[in-house]
Amino acid sequence: MFEIEQREIINVPENIKNILRKEIGEYKVLDDDMDRLLYSYDATRIKMLPSVVVIPETEEEVRKVVSICYQEGIPVTPRGAGSGYTGGALPVKGGVLVSFEKMDRILEIDEENAVARVQPGVVTYKLQQEVEKRGLFYPPDPASYKFCTIGGNVAENAGGPRCVKYGVTREYVMELNTVIYSGEIIHTGRPTLKDVAGYDITRVLIGSEGTLGLFTEITLKLIPKPKASKTVKAIFSDIASVGKTVKDIFKAGISPSALEFMDKLAINAVEDFGHFGLPRDAEVLLLIEVDGHPKALEEEIVEVARICELNGASVEIAQTDREAENLWTARRSLSPAVSKLGRVKINEDIVFPRSYLPEALPQLRDIGKRYNLKMVNFGHIGDGNVHANFMISGLDPDELKRTEKAVEEVFDLALKYGGSITGEHGVGITKASFMKKMFKPKEIEIMRGIKSVFDPEGLINPGKMGL
Amino acid sequence: MFEIEQREIINVPENIKNILRKEIGEYKVLDDDMDRLLYSYDATRIKMLPSVVVIPETEEEVRKVVSICYQEGIPVTPRGAGSGYTGGALPVKGGVLVSFEKMDRILEIDEENAVARVQPGVVTYKLQQEVEKRGLFYPPDPASYKFCTIGGNVAENAGGPRCVKYGVTREYVMELNTVIYSGEIIHTGRPTLKDVAGYDITRVLIGSEGTLGLFTEITLKLIPKPKASKTVKAIFSDIASVGKTVKDIFKAGISPSALEFMDKLAINAVEDFGHFGLPRDAEVLLLIEVDGHPKALEEEIVEVARICELNGASVEIAQTDREAENLWTARRSLSPAVSKLGRVKINEDIVFPRSYLPEALPQLRDIGKRYNLKMVNFGHIGDGNVHANFMISGLDPDELKRTEKAVEEVFDLALKYGGSITGEHGVGITKASFMKKMFKPKEIEIMRGIKSVFDPEGLINPGKMGL
Repeated sequence: MFEIEQREIINVPENIKNILRKEIGEYKVLDDDMDRLLYSYDATRIKMLPSVVVIPETEEEVRKVVSICYQEGIPVTPRGAGSGYTGGALPVKGGVLVSFEKMDRILEIDEENAVARVQPGVVTYKLQQEVEKRGLFYPPDPASYKFCTIGGNVAENAGGPRCVKYGVTREYVMELNTVIYSGEIIHTGRPTLKDVAGYDITRVLIGSEGTLGLFTEITLKLIPKPKASKTVKAIFSDIASVGKTVKDIFKAGISPSALEFMDKLAINAVEDFGHFGLPRDAEVLLLIEVDGHPKALEEEIVEVARICELNGASVEIAQTDREAENLWTARRSLSPAVSKLGRVKINEDIVFPRSYLPEALPQLRDIGKRYNLKMVNFGHIGDGNVHANFMISGLDPDELKRTEKAVEEVFDLALKYGGSITGEHGVGITKASFMKKMFKPKEIEIMRGIKSVFDPEGLINPGKMGL
Repeated sequence: MFEIEQREIINVPENIKNILRKEIGEYKVLDDDMDRLLYSYDATRIKMLPSVVVIPETEEEVRKVVSICYQEGIPVTPRGAGSGYTGGALPVKGGVLVSFEKMDRILEIDEENAVARVQPGVVTYKLQQEVEKRGLFYPPDPASYKFCTIGGNVAENAGGPRCVKYGVTREYVMELNTVIYSGEIIHTGRPTLKDVAGYDITRVLIGSEGTLGLFTEITLKLIPKPKASKTVKAIFSDIASVGKTVKDIFKAGISPSALEFMDKLAINAVEDFGHFGLPRDAEVLLLIEVDGHPKALEEEIVEVARICELNGASVEIAQTDREAENLWTARRSLSPAVSKLGRVKINEDIVFPRSYLPEALPQLRDIGKRYNLKMVNFGHIGDGNVHANFMISGLDPDELKRTEKAVEEVFDLALKYGGSITGEHGVGITKASFMKKMFKPKEIEIMRGIKSVFDPEGLINPGKMGL
């Protein structure tokens, strides 16, 4: 699993490079070694060199690139910000890598219909800032939201803390323009809340990890910006009580806008990183946010605090927005903070049905102990999505072997409880070999069938998802 | 369009009937004329005779039926309650009709994870009652909710008034067991809020109108039951102000749990039907519900009333739950009430992006006038989903011709504004010929490709969706 290499590499011949240069412009077609290297990795730190990097500026240019490559049997791999954790943007078979960095415009924010039309390269945070100025809200907030792009978010069906209340990227995509193998643009979906004409091709494309086509325009649903929010910090001395607390909050009919946890190692990593004043001796920390109408909020936050206390936690309600923001900044710094704990971060994002958390979380922690690995657990516990990180040197063969076995046990644990091997990150190349754990051969055959409909020659982001 | 007939009818040979009887039980395989007639129509009133009706009681029996039929080249058409408006449950090519009426059990209501597992034949209202007893909520509420079934709701991706706030059936389906052509059961989805492993086959199946496989088990997401609700009745003297009011409500950051309108003809039809005390001389009536936390509600309903008044409406807030319930009973009786206005109801459910409603609604009404047809407009104006009904005798060839032209203009109007030809009812057979208005040839080719992956011989609910 950790020795993933490029295979069946296809280099772009000189004459095709020239055609690409002529058709879409010299400076948008890069093939020197440094450029190829710069586009050869993502957040997995696995390196795979493209033969050529193309940086289109218009939908029409994307159409031309795909059309030319497909006719010539050259693989095409789309790339957003390259912030993915499963290698989705890596050109497994070389060929052409299409970077969407220049297609980064917000084309329209239609306030009356609460809809935004964007190019795929728009940074998620930038869109969020623009719509919030207008009293609107685009909820999905992956940890990388300050640099990841909407195109990548759609391809991976990105999540984030707020998704426990607001749903994942899928719930906000209304329309897609997608360049498919034939070099044609298909338009799917409608900018309306309801539409049941034909198969739901839009939702086949969401989460398809760029393996079915290249998005060139995306219409997103926006919602009214919540009027206010409140945050509670709760410190627990055992992990089972945390699971119970999560259950009790939902049972009380409260739908938190974020419900995050971090274990002791995660808390200490964050404190080493930024000195946020989190309690270093706490076994587990929960951060719980509720949002909505200010009057409803007052009652709900007190109820949340009470539930935490009843489960043995020591609780603090953030008194000001600034205090709350400080807590969330601490939470958001987890990813870089944890990265400092080891040279290599093996970052899994399994999911459990909520009610099994009290039972599953101690078992999860036990896996790290049994394999004698530095394991940091945190994540979106409100929706059962746990980030299990193994921090390793990556240089010791025995450590690598133990990590491989531990990761497999982590997946088995999630599947034992009817969960999933990935809640947010996707399958890409790093989880490809685990698809058969989760799906029956016929189910994978159906997925392969769909892949063939969109990509008969297997040239669109090949080598991904185990398909 | 109104002369849809069965074609390429395949009768089930005696020996296959005997195999079916032997495999799944004598009394579950019906082929006398009366039984076939009883299962030959749906809410379109178009009649299409199946050769055999099979009423399975278990998933295994469904599996056997599909397996036997597929091997023998016999079409299989699934049927829920037969309450659809586009002929989805009609056996266009004869063969075997599979009725899910006996697979009507709620298998599990998991309160801790807020999830329900049901058989496809469960009546939507029955499930709603059961989950509400437990403080949970299943929002989708098609007009037929007291008799339609969850299986049909999933197949058609059913909507209803509440969907403006809570989303359509799609948003609540977590897992599906589906019997496909090979007689195998595929399991898709997970009972978790997040899961991004593999293509989203669940959402390909939702809204596929039973053309890709037969659902045998469905896991649904539930949410906490809203604590309270309030209803406003607003009477308008012109239709453009109604469109403006809808826009203003959303602009104020209020997300109503229902926002319904009926025009004069609809109001009078309801009054003739049930004497609810609605104002017969009103040009348009809006019913607006907000739900949620009681304290937030008090403010929001007053704000809604104020917005209606500013737009020229005469407004009343229902003072008791009973008063509110009376208004919603009136709204729900619209379907049967309108049916009394003509022998045949041609019921279209187009969608507009919200902001175009003030402009589009008068044009819609104008279509009825120009073709000299009795036209009743009502529907879910909050999400732009308008039910445009032509009430005709169905016996006058000239009237039929005018209706056909009018319907085409209705669709053109929706598409002109970037809307859809169907928001809730699906395509089935009645809208099949209009698919090419909405989709490009390549888009339809992709849909046909997906159909082939799931149904290589074209035997699963054939003749639907123009595919």
